[in-house]
Amino acid sequence: MPQRVYLDWNATTPLRAEARDAIVAALETCGNPSSVHGEGRKARKILQDARAAVAASLGAAPESVVFTSGATEANVLALVPGLHRTHAQPVERLIVSAIEHASVLSGGRFGREIIEIAPVDRSGVIDLTALDGLLADKPPALVSVMLANNETGVVQPIRDVAQRVRAHGGVLHVDAVAAFGKIDIDISALDVDFLSISAHKIGGPKGVGALLVAGDLRGLRPLITGGGQEKGRRAGTENLPGIAGLGAAAKAAAAGRDHLTGHCDALRRRLEMGLKAILPSTIVFSEGVDRVCNTTLFSAPGLHAETAVIGFDLEGIAVSSGSACSSGKVQPSHVLEAMQAGPELAQGGVRISLGWETTENDIDRALEAWRKVAGSLVKKNDETVLERF
Amino acid sequence: MPQRVYLDWNATTPLRAEARDAIVAALETCGNPSSVHGEGRKARKILQDARAAVAASLGAAPESVVFTSGATEANVLALVPGLHRTHAQPVERLIVSAIEHASVLSGGRFGREIIEIAPVDRSGVIDLTALDGLLADKPPALVSVMLANNETGVVQPIRDVAQRVRAHGGVLHVDAVAAFGKIDIDISALDVDFLSISAHKIGGPKGVGALLVAGDLRGLRPLITGGGQEKGRRAGTENLPGIAGLGAAAKAAAAGRDHLTGHCDALRRRLEMGLKAILPSTIVFSEGVDRVCNTTLFSAPGLHAETAVIGFDLEGIAVSSGSACSSGKVQPSHVLEAMQAGPELAQGGVRISLGWETTENDIDRALEAWRKVAGSLVKKNDETVLERF
Repeated sequence: MPQRVYLDWNATTPLRAEARDAIVAALETCGNPSSVHGEGRKARKILQDARAAVAASLGAAPESVVFTSGATEANVLALVPGLHRTHAQPVERLIVSAIEHASVLSGGRFGREIIEIAPVDRSGVIDLTALDGLLADKPPALVSVMLANNETGVVQPIRDVAQRVRAHGGVLHVDAVAAFGKIDIDISALDVDFLSISAHKIGGPKGVGALLVAGDLRGLRPLITGGGQEKGRRAGTENLPGIAGLGAAAKAAAAGRDHLTGHCDALRRRLEMGLKAILPSTIVFSEGVDRVCNTTLFSAPGLHAETAVIGFDLEGIAVSSGSACSSGKVQPSHVLEAMQAGPELAQGGVRISLGWETTENDIDRALEAWRKVAGSLVKKNDETVLERF
Repeated sequence: MPQRVYLDWNATTPLRAEARDAIVAALETCGNPSSVHGEGRKARKILQDARAAVAASLGAAPESVVFTSGATEANVLALVPGLHRTHAQPVERLIVSAIEHASVLSGGRFGREIIEIAPVDRSGVIDLTALDGLLADKPPALVSVMLANNETGVVQPIRDVAQRVRAHGGVLHVDAVAAFGKIDIDISALDVDFLSISAHKIGGPKGVGALLVAGDLRGLRPLITGGGQEKGRRAGTENLPGIAGLGAAAKAAAAGRDHLTGHCDALRRRLEMGLKAILPSTIVFSEGVDRVCNTTLFSAPGLHAETAVIGFDLEGIAVSSGSACSSGKVQPSHVLEAMQAGPELAQGGVRISLGWETTENDIDRALEAWRKVAGSLVKKNDETVLERF
């Protein structure tokens, strides 16, 4: 049987060797970072090194890093009423883009009910005019817009968003999960207040992430309360092996980013040309706008995402239907709905995402599988056409 | 230089080989448990097996297990207004014992301000009569009492507590972190609604734990919101390596519990006799009541916990001053304060905690170190006495 081909790097990225080594070393350290003795100091050193590595990879200060159990927790930690920059008015409302991750759409501690939604255009880019309308003539808001979308890969114009949020005295949270490791991120150049990242999207382990918090932000209340860890911003004994893995992965991701971009760009071109050559009705979403290097979201009339994913899986290829964050439930992608793709295309959205281990041969294997999936689709469509007569 | 002796198992327990193997295997699984494809199914299987192992080790149903980033998160998840058993009135107030962990004393989503505190006696056992008084003639309460205290090791009379909470229509949360793996725990026999555990106190990795939730409990609202993971009770991609490690550690802890009890009992007797032989003014706290097998909390007039811990550390012995949960800050133990130990003894509380790797030689090395620490104390006391004249 041929080897399986994993093309779902946006759901979880295979672990980097550097991260594995750091995790295994941290597992050997029995100390608790809060302990006074030598073993505790050794554990603190691991924590400190990982914090420095994560901060450096994002142009941030080490003390801005709050380690969490992942980006979901980081997002919920950030979304809290009462935040403000020094001397500014606390934010009491929340504006998020329509294509955010479920954890942002949940509203965090604002709750889901009071969120205001900033729409995106048909390419999946945030509508800045609409955002202006939401910001104007009302009290300052916390705004949450992702740096890159996890389904389409679209890179959002965060500097333009930041400018607008600032002009209205608001606070800006950026979910950088899908962008981290793929584009250059400098937190001060972006002028954002919060930035969320996740380890397992850059080759670190699952179950760890971080929220970066700008130095002049005030009013952050911990979500998980108890001990004084993370400077009182996140209680609980630190996930030392996970954090060590995140630190190592962040360092390796920064070092390998340029190579990854070139590598994936070429492979993705091959993939997208192939998909359309096999089935000319194939639509690659957001093709004309700036996307991270590794992500392709496509559909075709009559395609069902779940059937397609299972079809690919039977051919040994792991792909995804939009995001994988709703516990195995395949629902029409809220991102495609926000892009007004129409129900027929939205129900068929399939995501292929690549990484540093992806080869030309993997792409060709995926295209072979697509030939079969698309073939049965064309056949089914023909039958449907026949049935109509 | 002689090898270091680690006697701080209650802060963090060294990783079990079974847990390490399970973690390393899970790290190789690139799938996301929420993904539909083969890699996703493989990840789900790891999750499912760990859930079954944790449940089995506590006499619980697998669906009662909610994996969290640790016991702190589990505690904060449990402490939420509005909980109730089927057909009962929702709880709107919180009663906790005075010796709870910082995460329980924070009040979770009740907030710290409105907590009612149930006192303990001088042995550190909850005062049931006082608890009765707090429960009577008021609306039903959520009550949180730990199964064993992490500083003294005292096992609390949870069945008696449960009976009282039931009689008043309340809900009972039990922090079982310090008891798990040391005494037999059966969640239905205890008749509790919630039980929190932590992996790194039983030889699993740091950064993972679980909240067990009784089947007929209603009104639990997620703390971390977003995707539908953990049956909607805890969002975010699961910490697969951590959870695998917790599952393996729970299984190994259950299998090794009887041996651990015998092993530690003998060593602790040797330790406590030795401590008192070296310095007759030594007080071993809670000596006369039921304690878990591995924990000794002691003090002596004139002892400063921080100085003592550093003294032991310089002799190559890792011990702790009460709990290690406040990020390196050594404060007088709130547990000893609640036990009315008096400020002089409370400031000197040193905890020695043992485990399956502890040897007689380790105990003897600790006693040698104590001879020096106590010696300088006696000397200092003499000087103090001299100064007085």
